[in-house]
Amino acid sequence: MISMRPFGITRRAYSTSNITVDALVYGSYGKPSDVLKWHSYKLPALTANTLHVKFLASPINPADVNQVQGAYPFKPPFRSLGDQDSTPYAVGGNEGVAEVIAVGDQVQGIQVGDHVLPNPGFGTWRNFASGAANDFQVLPKRKNVSIIQEATLSVNPCTAYRMLKDFVPLQPGDYVIQNGANSAVGQSVIQLAKAWGLNTINVIRDRPNLDELKQSLEQLGATHVLTEEMLRSHDTKTLIKQWGSPKLGLNCVGGKAATEMARHLKANGQYVTYGAMARAPLALPASLLIFKNLSFHGFWMTRWTDTHNAQERATMVEDLLDLMDQDKLNEVAWTRVNWEAKDVVTAVEQGIQGYGSGKQIILFD
Amino acid sequence: MISMRPFGITRRAYSTSNITVDALVYGSYGKPSDVLKWHSYKLPALTANTLHVKFLASPINPADVNQVQGAYPFKPPFRSLGDQDSTPYAVGGNEGVAEVIAVGDQVQGIQVGDHVLPNPGFGTWRNFASGAANDFQVLPKRKNVSIIQEATLSVNPCTAYRMLKDFVPLQPGDYVIQNGANSAVGQSVIQLAKAWGLNTINVIRDRPNLDELKQSLEQLGATHVLTEEMLRSHDTKTLIKQWGSPKLGLNCVGGKAATEMARHLKANGQYVTYGAMARAPLALPASLLIFKNLSFHGFWMTRWTDTHNAQERATMVEDLLDLMDQDKLNEVAWTRVNWEAKDVVTAVEQGIQGYGSGKQIILFD
Repeated sequence: MISMRPFGITRRAYSTSNITVDALVYGSYGKPSDVLKWHSYKLPALTANTLHVKFLASPINPADVNQVQGAYPFKPPFRSLGDQDSTPYAVGGNEGVAEVIAVGDQVQGIQVGDHVLPNPGFGTWRNFASGAANDFQVLPKRKNVSIIQEATLSVNPCTAYRMLKDFVPLQPGDYVIQNGANSAVGQSVIQLAKAWGLNTINVIRDRPNLDELKQSLEQLGATHVLTEEMLRSHDTKTLIKQWGSPKLGLNCVGGKAATEMARHLKANGQYVTYGAMARAPLALPASLLIFKNLSFHGFWMTRWTDTHNAQERATMVEDLLDLMDQDKLNEVAWTRVNWEAKDVVTAVEQGIQGYGSGKQIILFD
Repeated sequence: MISMRPFGITRRAYSTSNITVDALVYGSYGKPSDVLKWHSYKLPALTANTLHVKFLASPINPADVNQVQGAYPFKPPFRSLGDQDSTPYAVGGNEGVAEVIAVGDQVQGIQVGDHVLPNPGFGTWRNFASGAANDFQVLPKRKNVSIIQEATLSVNPCTAYRMLKDFVPLQPGDYVIQNGANSAVGQSVIQLAKAWGLNTINVIRDRPNLDELKQSLEQLGATHVLTEEMLRSHDTKTLIKQWGSPKLGLNCVGGKAATEMARHLKANGQYVTYGAMARAPLALPASLLIFKNLSFHGFWMTRWTDTHNAQERATMVEDLLDLMDQDKLNEVAWTRVNWEAKDVVTAVEQGIQGYGSGKQIILFD
């Protein structure tokens, strides 16, 4: 519908000349409840080369919390946000979806009403923002994709997508093994693998509601679900060989269970670490490297985004939105965080714990 | 000179029709002094498609000893060696150089007098052998290359060559870091790097004769020599950054010192494990994988040989022989083992300890 409007009309939906931005910012690193503060400033005037956006939904990811703590290697620069207050700040949050509400005359390819994803480090814990066109990636419109799916697209599903694509060529029927299979990335891996005809062996920790979780992962498309304990048994070793030894292993846990998982890979297999929930290093017996010829890599979405061009990013995002539109990649479990001081800061303090009660997402409205 | 002889004359230097082969064989796995035995058999008659060779020199490598123990993943098949004794055996040893003494009429590209390297698993602890042309690789003749250099070419120098070539593109001036720098492979790495304009940071264990060893490695071409203890110091970290962080790490040690070495690699660096002298796994903090984007691989020369064609092997061997001929790749320290029962078996029992008094090499004559 947007494309039917005469050119120019969509440049500005309503006046954005007198908007006050409320942002959750930090000017030093530390405990989130100590260093996070509210900062209000006037939205900078629209120029020919900028656009104005209104945030719709912004997740609170564990990495965002680590960033506030100063414990994350990617640190957005502190800078002055408005003319009222020259203190340099970074706006919290790295992920989120915003709607374009005004577009400068010289800006190409973006229209009012478009949904956009800001680049990592832009700062997504704020209700409005001004930026250059290349601060944002425009999302193609898909009927059947929710704001939550858009807001949570750029980290977890993209991580799963790249890890399945970039480390070893996989053919339909090939096996992938992963631990932390119930994490947001793990669930994306299950669904993408299923959509692409790949089989997954999904490792989870034993827990009281094991059968329930196993069932829910199988409903997502998991081929097999095993506990860490089962992975160590001789029978499982035989079983996995019968199914087909995996060419790719995806690890977000570390420690002994991660070494155990590596032993099940096929010779010449690739093993990718993207997290360390057990907070223990990955111990590699030399035989896995020398005689089994496994290679061990890391994956960090922030670096991928930083080292790949807009076209590559657009292709991936379009693929993922198509799968969401076809109900092949579901909305992650989530809980609403209200855009109110107390609620957000509490959520950030809890955010480091991750997905206990689903992903925490700020809704602005 | 060989090529000047009329075709046909070089097919057979002397009669090989009545030769008895003495071989050190094993028919089961175990302690070398228990399972190794002498076996004599008649050299099979020359056929149109075979050749006869006389061994000149065969090393006793730690991997050969592991193979006799049954503790090595590459196991030559046991098979009957002659018509007198149908017990299936494997002949010990994987490395060695032999001289061609007779060539079948249909064999192309090999002449009497050529020096050849048998394929891994052929069995080199014997004075004579019969084989097909593709059991051997012919060595181009180089004036200034010793039999010892030929006999010790196919494992250690080739391992160093491939590890420097195959994991990351290196430009002159780039840095490589390695531990176990005094091992036979380590010494080849130092010399190849020097010949190719690369810089090496060489890590060794502290020891009484440290200065002497340091000096001898520097004479080989080592850019810097450090102890494991020095590697852990903050000053060394700064120093290595000033020199130029290495893009490639080569590890034959494992354990904590190997993790420490990985921390000095440049972002996106490649780390190759080819041994585990400390007999401890390599522990990888997730940050080295995820944020520093290091990749960890293994290298095993036997697999490389098995998966690459004769032309690739010939190019490498020619490069290495040229460097030896130009005195850029020295003869490794070695001690002679006599081709007599007691001497060889004792040497094999000691062989697992490696290069204490230099590489042990059987000389036949």
